[in-house]
Amino acid sequence: MATLILLRHGQSTYNQENRFTGWVDVDLTPQGYEEAQKAGELLRNASLLPDIVLTSVLKRAIYTADEVLKVLDRSWVPVEKTWRLNERHYGGLSGLDKAETADRFGAEQVKIWRRSYDVQPPRTSDEEHHHLMADPRYQGLTATDVPYTEALVDVLVRVMPYWEERIAPLLTQDETVLVSAHGNSLRAMVKFLESIPDDEIVGYEIANGEPIVYQLDAGLKVISKDVL
Amino acid sequence: MATLILLRHGQSTYNQENRFTGWVDVDLTPQGYEEAQKAGELLRNASLLPDIVLTSVLKRAIYTADEVLKVLDRSWVPVEKTWRLNERHYGGLSGLDKAETADRFGAEQVKIWRRSYDVQPPRTSDEEHHHLMADPRYQGLTATDVPYTEALVDVLVRVMPYWEERIAPLLTQDETVLVSAHGNSLRAMVKFLESIPDDEIVGYEIANGEPIVYQLDAGLKVISKDVL
Repeated sequence: MATLILLRHGQSTYNQENRFTGWVDVDLTPQGYEEAQKAGELLRNASLLPDIVLTSVLKRAIYTADEVLKVLDRSWVPVEKTWRLNERHYGGLSGLDKAETADRFGAEQVKIWRRSYDVQPPRTSDEEHHHLMADPRYQGLTATDVPYTEALVDVLVRVMPYWEERIAPLLTQDETVLVSAHGNSLRAMVKFLESIPDDEIVGYEIANGEPIVYQLDAGLKVISKDVL
Repeated sequence: MATLILLRHGQSTYNQENRFTGWVDVDLTPQGYEEAQKAGELLRNASLLPDIVLTSVLKRAIYTADEVLKVLDRSWVPVEKTWRLNERHYGGLSGLDKAETADRFGAEQVKIWRRSYDVQPPRTSDEEHHHLMADPRYQGLTATDVPYTEALVDVLVRVMPYWEERIAPLLTQDETVLVSAHGNSLRAMVKFLESIPDDEIVGYEIANGEPIVYQLDAGLKVISKDVL
């Protein structure tokens, strides 16, 4: 039986400041580090020991994974990082204060951007896109891989190849896999695993530092789900 | 041109307590974490930015790598861990206080174990060896891969396949490679790179947290060496 643990990073500085984050690479707050350590304790108490960790190329998810592994005394397990597990790219809203954004675009419009499955926020500027393309962590990606903006459905589209090529084969070998990632890249997997309809997944909340644990059968169907 | 950075971990609790460490998986001291951060600052000031980090499966080397990458704001680079970069296995001396060991076996004998190229310390117990074999990080290794004890030459023998299969190909692609490891696994590489004779390499000291930087030509011959 395979075990898949989904973990959203601890509180980030932008979570604390109530800003849209997306691909902006912000650190955890002290509370965020504590949440990551607490997640490690929850896993330890449940005897859930990852054989491998998959994470994004954003430090809030990587540092969360590092803290969890320290608590579990398993820093020696492989940790693989991929842009495909990055947070949803919030386009032109990235870095903006959520209240100011509501003042500027209207609360209803912001709600649509935040809570619709396929409506993209405004595109980021060409300058910002060039900036991302020049970031060495995104070398080797095409200009269409690096988003100008993303709706949740776009996140699913980029997460699924990684599920098929990397996550599913590991689970098929009965590995215990910890995915340390972000609200929307995890929502993409929850939607797929539980066949949640488009209009429901957008309201599915994943709390910082609360591991979601799936037991899966040989065909990777969900046998059980627990939120620790 | 390829760049190879060799970095010995920061001070460990056993360094501080003056004990033989080997494969015992001890943490860094607070000073050790500071030394790791300082190594990161030295690399940053020299604009030496690793494309990939190779480390052992021992936490003092892994945490050193993590701290360096945090300082460099490059935690997204791949970090690969292998037992082949572990410290020399100190056999039956592992965990023993160095002064007590000298009292017990004689200072001259201890000097031979510490400073000869091919004299192994006493073998570890079968119980300790079973304990290592049962450690999940060493699953997949044979009973002969997992040592009972090692001389420096034994470390070379296990490091070289990793050099050939992983490190050399990365360097041939002009990658900047950071190896965060241990006094003796690094000595093995220094000996090879600089063709240092057996009786000299045993006295070659590598300080905690002081990066050694090699520039290498296309044939991986050393063009220059700097200790930061």
